[in-house]
Amino acid sequence: MKFLLSILLFFTFCSLRAQKNSELTYTNAGKLTLVGKSEDSPRRYERIDSNKYSGLPARVAQLLTQAAGLAVSFKTNSPVIAARWCVSKSRANASMVPTAQKGVDLYIKNGNKWQFAGIGKVNGQCNDEILIQRMNDTEKECLLYLPLYDSVDQVEIGIAKGASLTGSPDPFKKKVLIYGSSIVQGTGASRPGMAYPARLTRATGINFINLGLSGSAKMEPEVADMVAAITADAYILDCVPNTNPELITERTAYLINTIRKKHPSAPIIVMQSLVRETGYWDKTLGGQVKKQNMNVQTEVLNLLQKGMKNLYFITSENMIGDDHDGTIDGTHPSDLGYDRMIKQIQPQIMEILSKHGIK
Amino acid sequence: MKFLLSILLFFTFCSLRAQKNSELTYTNAGKLTLVGKSEDSPRRYERIDSNKYSGLPARVAQLLTQAAGLAVSFKTNSPVIAARWCVSKSRANASMVPTAQKGVDLYIKNGNKWQFAGIGKVNGQCNDEILIQRMNDTEKECLLYLPLYDSVDQVEIGIAKGASLTGSPDPFKKKVLIYGSSIVQGTGASRPGMAYPARLTRATGINFINLGLSGSAKMEPEVADMVAAITADAYILDCVPNTNPELITERTAYLINTIRKKHPSAPIIVMQSLVRETGYWDKTLGGQVKKQNMNVQTEVLNLLQKGMKNLYFITSENMIGDDHDGTIDGTHPSDLGYDRMIKQIQPQIMEILSKHGIK
Repeated sequence: MKFLLSILLFFTFCSLRAQKNSELTYTNAGKLTLVGKSEDSPRRYERIDSNKYSGLPARVAQLLTQAAGLAVSFKTNSPVIAARWCVSKSRANASMVPTAQKGVDLYIKNGNKWQFAGIGKVNGQCNDEILIQRMNDTEKECLLYLPLYDSVDQVEIGIAKGASLTGSPDPFKKKVLIYGSSIVQGTGASRPGMAYPARLTRATGINFINLGLSGSAKMEPEVADMVAAITADAYILDCVPNTNPELITERTAYLINTIRKKHPSAPIIVMQSLVRETGYWDKTLGGQVKKQNMNVQTEVLNLLQKGMKNLYFITSENMIGDDHDGTIDGTHPSDLGYDRMIKQIQPQIMEILSKHGIK
Repeated sequence: MKFLLSILLFFTFCSLRAQKNSELTYTNAGKLTLVGKSEDSPRRYERIDSNKYSGLPARVAQLLTQAAGLAVSFKTNSPVIAARWCVSKSRANASMVPTAQKGVDLYIKNGNKWQFAGIGKVNGQCNDEILIQRMNDTEKECLLYLPLYDSVDQVEIGIAKGASLTGSPDPFKKKVLIYGSSIVQGTGASRPGMAYPARLTRATGINFINLGLSGSAKMEPEVADMVAAITADAYILDCVPNTNPELITERTAYLINTIRKKHPSAPIIVMQSLVRETGYWDKTLGGQVKKQNMNVQTEVLNLLQKGMKNLYFITSENMIGDDHDGTIDGTHPSDLGYDRMIKQIQPQIMEILSKHGIK
C-alpha cells in the first residue's frame, strides 16, 4: 500500500512538473494591457523613457528602467496560471524579499475586489513559475505585478492548453502620479503587489502610478521638469526622505511650481516623511528628519500664502503606528507599516481627489 | 563652500567608518546572558543539542542548529552599538528578507517597553555592522536577536571605547515552548525580532521559546519525545501546517499524551493552522488545510472527552485577517499577518496561562 502510494505520488509529482514544462501554452504579455505606466515609451517594461528627458541623474535614469508598479492585465478561464519573466544580473538586495525585488505576484478579481492568488519566486535571470493551479474554469480577471526593483523582459503568461487567454482593458481609472523614495518604490513590501501605490490602486480603483526612485527622489530641477511633463489627474509628492533640510528648502517650490505651471488646476498633495524608528535613539538622524519635515511644511505654507490653489499637505504623525515595529530596518515600512500608513493617508487622499472629481 | 562641504562630508564618512573598525571595543557574547534557549547545550547558539535525542530526522537535527528565537541580553551606556557574527554558507532563501534569515536586530528597553533600535544587515559569512549610533550615554538594557534561519558563531558586541558593557539577567520569566512550523520559526518576518514568539515574549514578559522547525514540524514520535523532554511551564503546538490530514490523525494524540505524561499539569495549547490564502483559489490545497484543521480538532476533542485536563484549543478563523493580504506567498504571514495573528492569539494564550499562574 505504501509502495502504491509512493508510485501515485511520484506520478502526481511528475504530472505537475510536466504541466509546467510542456502542458502549458505561453503567450507573450506584449500583446496584453500593461497597467501602471505613466506614459508610453519604447521599452515596454520600463516606467519612463529616460532619453526623452535631458539631464536626468544617471541613477534616476537607471531606476526608471525598473518595473515598479507595472502589471499585466488579462482574462483567462485556465485552472492554472504560470509566468515566465527575465530580470537583470543585479545583486540580491540585502534588505528586500527576493520576490519583491525580482519576482512577480498575481491578483484575481473576486466579485468587486482584487484578491491575492499566488507568487512567482525568482530563481535566476529567467524564471518559469506556476503561480496558482487547480482552480475552477470560470473566466477570471487577472493582474500580474512585475518586479519592483529590476528591469524586466520577455514576460509570458502560461495557461492550460485549450484554455482561453484574452486581453483585458486597464481596470483602473484616472491617473495619480506618486513621485517619491524607496518607500514609494516598495523596499519593505513582501511582494510587488504590496507596494503602497499598488495597494491604493486596488483599494480605490484609481491608478496610482509608482514613480518611486529609491534613494534618488531628490527633486533635481531636471527631475522636476520630467514629473511636470507627465500628464496626470493629480500629483503626490512623497519625496522628503531622500534629501536633507537644505535641499528641501532649495528645491520644493521649484518642483511644485513647475507642476502647477503645466497643470493649472490639478491637485498637488505633499506628504511629510514618516519618522525613522532608528531616529528615536539616534537623535542626529531623528533631528534631521524632523527638520526635513518642518522645511517641507514651510515651503508648502509659503506657496499657499502666495495664493497657490489645490495644494494639499499630509502630515506624518503616527503614520506607521506607535509601537516602533512597522519597519524592516528603522526606515522602510514592512507590509505592516504600509498597512498603517494606508489607513492614515488613503482617506485624506481620497477626500482631496473626490473634491476634484477624481473618483 | 561646496568643496569645503565635500571635504567635511568625506572626513565625517571616514570617521564613521573608522569608528566601526578601530574605535570600538568588541566583547565576546559568550560571556553574556543568552535568552530564548529551551535548555543548555554544548554549542551555545544552537537551540537544542540534537545528539541528546536519538532518532531525530536529519532535517530536524539541522534546524535545531539554527538560532531562531535566541537573543543576547546586556546593558551598556555606549552611544554606539555594533555586532559581529558569522553564519554558514547556506544559500539565500528566495522567500525571506536576508536580515531575517542571516541578520540580527537590536531592541532597547524604553521605560517598561522593548523598542526596536536597529538592524545588522548580512553581507557575507562574517559580518561587522553598526546597529545604532549617536545615542545618549545613559545605561540601556539591550536585546540582540540572532538570525532565524542559520547557525551562528562568534557573536561579539561592539561599543565605544571607555563605555561599559555588562551582562544583564534574562529579562523574561517562565518558559512557554512553541513547537511548530516555519510560521513559528519566522519565514515571513522582516527581521529576527519580528518572529511571533519573540513578539509575544516582548509583549508579555514571558519567555516564548521558538521551536519552529521549518517544513519539518511533523510530530514524529522521536520529535514528540524530545518536545516532552524539555521542561516548560506550558506547551503550544502550532504544528498542523507541515503534515497532512492522515498524519495529524496518526500522530497528534501521541505528541499530546507524551507531553502530558512528563508534565502532568502543564497547560497544552493546540493551534489550528492559519488558512492558506492560495487555498481560496486552489481548492485542493484549501480543502487539505481544512481537513488538517478538522482532524487536529477531532484529536483534541477525543482527548478532552477521555478526561485530559489543561488541554486547550485555538481555532484559526480570520487569524490573519480577511483581506487575503497578510502573507508573503499565500502561506507565510508577513509582519502584517503576524500582527493580526498576535491580536487574535495573545489574549487567548494569556488567559490560559494566567489561569495556571503563569504570568
